[in-house]
Amino acid sequence: MADDSIANTPAPPYTAVIFTSLRDEVPGDGYAEMAERMDALAAQQPGYLGVESAREGVGITVSYWASDADAAAWKRVVEHAEAQRIGREQWYRSYRVRVATVTREYGHETP
Amino acid sequence: MADDSIANTPAPPYTAVIFTSLRDEVPGDGYAEMAERMDALAAQQPGYLGVESAREGVGITVSYWASDADAAAWKRVVEHAEAQRIGREQWYRSYRVRVATVTREYGHETP
Repeated sequence: MADDSIANTPAPPYTAVIFTSLRDEVPGDGYAEMAERMDALAAQQPGYLGVESAREGVGITVSYWASDADAAAWKRVVEHAEAQRIGREQWYRSYRVRVATVTREYGHETP
Repeated sequence: MADDSIANTPAPPYTAVIFTSLRDEVPGDGYAEMAERMDALAAQQPGYLGVESAREGVGITVSYWASDADAAAWKRVVEHAEAQRIGREQWYRSYRVRVATVTREYGHETP
């Protein structure tokens, strides 16, 4: 999975893909390995800017992309499409994907 | 905190506020109570559509609003502004807020 950090995204605009899911934890069902593989594969795609991920009841993964086209291209990568198919059939009770354009951003770092 | 569910948002476009944070867990520091209070208060604001939240290393809370103006108004609600101040001073090592326009959405439910 993604490391525990806040993605270091550039100035807006850019694209955020918000993936929210519910799943039943089944040890040994291959989910963790696939998630790790998909994180590594996503990071190699054109336009990838970063990812943030947490699961606590609901799972939320937000991936950031330079453009909508880059996000759409990642959705179609063959190995990723296969992971999506297994996800629908085996891992997820339900999920929703929201594609969004980030228009402004601000933050805070404790000195 | 938010219940463990996927927000039931309407057809796009609408606004997503992606709040990503890192914090040190300090039992008894008032964080959990404030988070619960803010979830309840947010749900009373005009244009509120729902929220999704998980913490696992990084914390991700995505709140959904009918418009950018509704999201901006919630940021300025006095009690919320005070919570943001305490957050910066006490609870969060760092955070980032991204305001985004959701342009398309799709999902899956296991039958």
